[in-house]
Amino acid sequence: MHGRMMEQPLTLDAILRRARTVFGDREVVSRRADGALHRTTYGQLAARVDRLMGALQALGVRPGDRVATFAWNGHRHLELYFAVPCLGAVLHTVNVRLAPEQIAYIVQHAGDAVLCVDRALVPALLAAAPRLPAGLRYVVLDDDGRGADAGLPGALDYEAWLAQAPPPAAAVPLDEHQAAGLCYTSGTTGEPKGVLYSHRSTVLHAFGCGMVDSLGVAQRDTVLPVVPMFHVNAWGLPYAAALVGARLVLPGAHLGGDALAGLIEAERVTFAAGVPTVWNLVLQSLRRHPRDVSSLRRLVFGGAPTPRALVEQWQHEFGVPVTHAWGMTETSPVGACTHAGSTGLAPDDPADITLRGRPGRPVPGLEARIVGDDGRELPWDGQTAGELCVRGPWVASGYFGHATHEAFPADGWFRTGDVATIDPGGAIAITDRKKDLIKSRGEWISSTALENAALLHPGVLEAAVVARPDPLRDEAPVLFVVPRDAAAPPPPADLVAHLAASFPRWQLPRREDVRLVDAIPKTSVGKIDKKLLRRRLRDG
Amino acid sequence: MHGRMMEQPLTLDAILRRARTVFGDREVVSRRADGALHRTTYGQLAARVDRLMGALQALGVRPGDRVATFAWNGHRHLELYFAVPCLGAVLHTVNVRLAPEQIAYIVQHAGDAVLCVDRALVPALLAAAPRLPAGLRYVVLDDDGRGADAGLPGALDYEAWLAQAPPPAAAVPLDEHQAAGLCYTSGTTGEPKGVLYSHRSTVLHAFGCGMVDSLGVAQRDTVLPVVPMFHVNAWGLPYAAALVGARLVLPGAHLGGDALAGLIEAERVTFAAGVPTVWNLVLQSLRRHPRDVSSLRRLVFGGAPTPRALVEQWQHEFGVPVTHAWGMTETSPVGACTHAGSTGLAPDDPADITLRGRPGRPVPGLEARIVGDDGRELPWDGQTAGELCVRGPWVASGYFGHATHEAFPADGWFRTGDVATIDPGGAIAITDRKKDLIKSRGEWISSTALENAALLHPGVLEAAVVARPDPLRDEAPVLFVVPRDAAAPPPPADLVAHLAASFPRWQLPRREDVRLVDAIPKTSVGKIDKKLLRRRLRDG
Repeated sequence: MHGRMMEQPLTLDAILRRARTVFGDREVVSRRADGALHRTTYGQLAARVDRLMGALQALGVRPGDRVATFAWNGHRHLELYFAVPCLGAVLHTVNVRLAPEQIAYIVQHAGDAVLCVDRALVPALLAAAPRLPAGLRYVVLDDDGRGADAGLPGALDYEAWLAQAPPPAAAVPLDEHQAAGLCYTSGTTGEPKGVLYSHRSTVLHAFGCGMVDSLGVAQRDTVLPVVPMFHVNAWGLPYAAALVGARLVLPGAHLGGDALAGLIEAERVTFAAGVPTVWNLVLQSLRRHPRDVSSLRRLVFGGAPTPRALVEQWQHEFGVPVTHAWGMTETSPVGACTHAGSTGLAPDDPADITLRGRPGRPVPGLEARIVGDDGRELPWDGQTAGELCVRGPWVASGYFGHATHEAFPADGWFRTGDVATIDPGGAIAITDRKKDLIKSRGEWISSTALENAALLHPGVLEAAVVARPDPLRDEAPVLFVVPRDAAAPPPPADLVAHLAASFPRWQLPRREDVRLVDAIPKTSVGKIDKKLLRRRLRDG
Repeated sequence: MHGRMMEQPLTLDAILRRARTVFGDREVVSRRADGALHRTTYGQLAARVDRLMGALQALGVRPGDRVATFAWNGHRHLELYFAVPCLGAVLHTVNVRLAPEQIAYIVQHAGDAVLCVDRALVPALLAAAPRLPAGLRYVVLDDDGRGADAGLPGALDYEAWLAQAPPPAAAVPLDEHQAAGLCYTSGTTGEPKGVLYSHRSTVLHAFGCGMVDSLGVAQRDTVLPVVPMFHVNAWGLPYAAALVGARLVLPGAHLGGDALAGLIEAERVTFAAGVPTVWNLVLQSLRRHPRDVSSLRRLVFGGAPTPRALVEQWQHEFGVPVTHAWGMTETSPVGACTHAGSTGLAPDDPADITLRGRPGRPVPGLEARIVGDDGRELPWDGQTAGELCVRGPWVASGYFGHATHEAFPADGWFRTGDVATIDPGGAIAITDRKKDLIKSRGEWISSTALENAALLHPGVLEAAVVARPDPLRDEAPVLFVVPRDAAAPPPPADLVAHLAASFPRWQLPRREDVRLVDAIPKTSVGKIDKKLLRRRLRDG
């Protein structure tokens, strides 16, 4: 027997309608390419979304078609976030930091019909252009109306195009299972793989982001997504902000520590989210140029392990509580998070700070478990480590264009590739990426644990650990360190002695395996590029 | 094109699984009939839910069958909340305050197969028993294992029954559209009508309850649902608490002001929800017997208009911020709510307190509009009043066993029967129940506005306004007042003068129409029974 409740589909047009009507006056602030701030409201933006839908339809975009973006976080990108899925088409956000061959690969693989590109990013796209499909239509997002001259064949200028747009046809009926978005993983292993989000998964994820025990985005917030809109829907924040009526501040291409710190102060940002390296840059900036960042009530770290040292420094130097969020492209992404004080401890309690380096409990709606190499479930004892598996209504069930994939076995649980423990209270702690574990004489060494410990040394700015083959130990850890002061780097023996306080002798890197470097290579989404580090080691 | 996301159904077994595994150690406290506190955990409770499912199956309960409860808020009622829908059956919560003929009507109308009744409520049920179906199986919920002797034909004792239960059959596959719960409206007009909740609507509502801008139930909370579990799923709080892992405190039959105030103090309740009359009783108790209620961070008023005076008194005397929530049986029920300070004002700012007498913005997921008598949408200007209509995934689309009903017209919006304005920011203010408006010489008078103003008079404890026919004015308002001090009631002329400060002369009751009474009659869910007041007026 069915219930007798309304069959309202969980589709993104409802979020747009809410932003337009209930939160029509709430502000959306975008930093333009020239650094100036552009101010609009959800109401004005929704009116432009209507025009954009008409323009896309006039260009021939039909339900199911893929429309790509190649853009920083800005109001035009946000317009595309709503117009494309509300037409029934699929928003494919392309990572602007990819190499030209990867860009060409994923645009072809996705079968994009239209590609909307920031004027400033046209050169990056032109490098890939010879390998892009001939029929692809380009639209250039620009502040001065000269996008058509940007050098892309047959390109339309976004503003001119919108100005001439016919009104959109009658509302397209949307099914909640329909595809709404497409995002490719950064592909540190193998080819990039596409995750095809549905309206339902995206709307449920936005609801989740508004829950107290998840990200907790609320109407009272001013949200700064530093995480790019080309990266897993900027962690779902644009949709969540529109749903709850939060004010949005979009930083454009200005992602340096000073620019972000200035934006937080000037716009009284209360909620900001990005990868740890970004918050390290902002922290360094604030040390050089003190600013009032007291408006920040929630600073979300995600996309990489959160170093304990950064949690401590933000808490103690600036009184800003760090939230660690765990997720992946395949999980929409928010899968687990830990807030300051969520355990009942004070935010500056060392035990609370330790917990905030961990994902913690899965957010409401998601389920987690760990399995051994044989696929059997392992106990939640906080000790036994196994591969983390998750399931839930905003977890992928496969990759776009792949009939099957080993990450999606028949048991219905997505295999994350993270190695984790789960404690009796359901809290997850990641010990490593499966492929980054170091195997020494049959025992595992966690590269992440060594990195976090190294970061607690006062002379260390950044740290990365990868394995090198070793005739005696099978694999041995190599520690790359960026010194805080290049003129006075910490002696390798000091660093090893520092680590020896926390690790057994057999897990330590040898002194010769400590490498002082100027920088640690990062992937296109800001994670440490261990694949490249290993290649450098191999190539000497 | 469909997305490629997991098709995890939105079903209540997922909430039970989460409570069992992630929050297995969190406490559920219940006040027994004898006043003692029973303590268990979600983990222990889930194990008993398993036994209960086996017992229900052995009794012949199959998917789609209705299992009724006739019980106060307690741990056994909570076990039924999970076991019945997780079997695929439908939990029908019967209002224990109904008259015997209404109880018999809805049990017959629902077609209940089993009825689970608190031992202490057996006498109330026996009054209806002659008219209950012959085949109905009774289960008596009791602390001392003697439920079988309670005087109901063929009754089982819940604990003895559970002790002998076979293990449940393999998990029943659940569809999210399947019916999960059934609750009848209190029926102040016409016969009670049943709302048939689905798993989907119930799970989405639970998600909503965990959002910051809705009720905001969180893991850190200790939740006291004073609102009965026989009344719209206790506003969804049991399911929301289990989803987020909040500690639950269930007050049983002990609903007096002293008992509740004592429970709040002893169990350090952070979140409590009930009708305004309950919070008035608790306030009076706290004035007589001061207690430490500083743990309360959210006190939710719902089910009736929130008198401004109560918001002020709770805020100023006890520093407890009141949240006003608006909803109906047909809306699961949470439809709109306003928290202290949600507008950016201080919680003790008079303007903020004014706002908290109103529903405010619809919660994320719900949409609202107002329509005129001709069904056309009216503007959101904060002035124009019309019938409030809502829609969303946890709003009913019809009544159980009624093919159609005028509250569910073909336009897809549920007509609430409330008269409201909506301001340009989407905030709803209820001006009256449609049937309680008073029409004087072609102009409307709001009974609710007069009641709220009367409550601001220091001599008034309770107030109610209904219309009487008037030869000159068509209808005239009659004000019923319960004096704060029966020995020194406020003179009617004083009360009229007090109202004259806020209302035009033609809206005022005449002095002769002010009636000092000992009590104001309430419906079974604690609302002012205006139907009865009108009848008393008519009958002199």
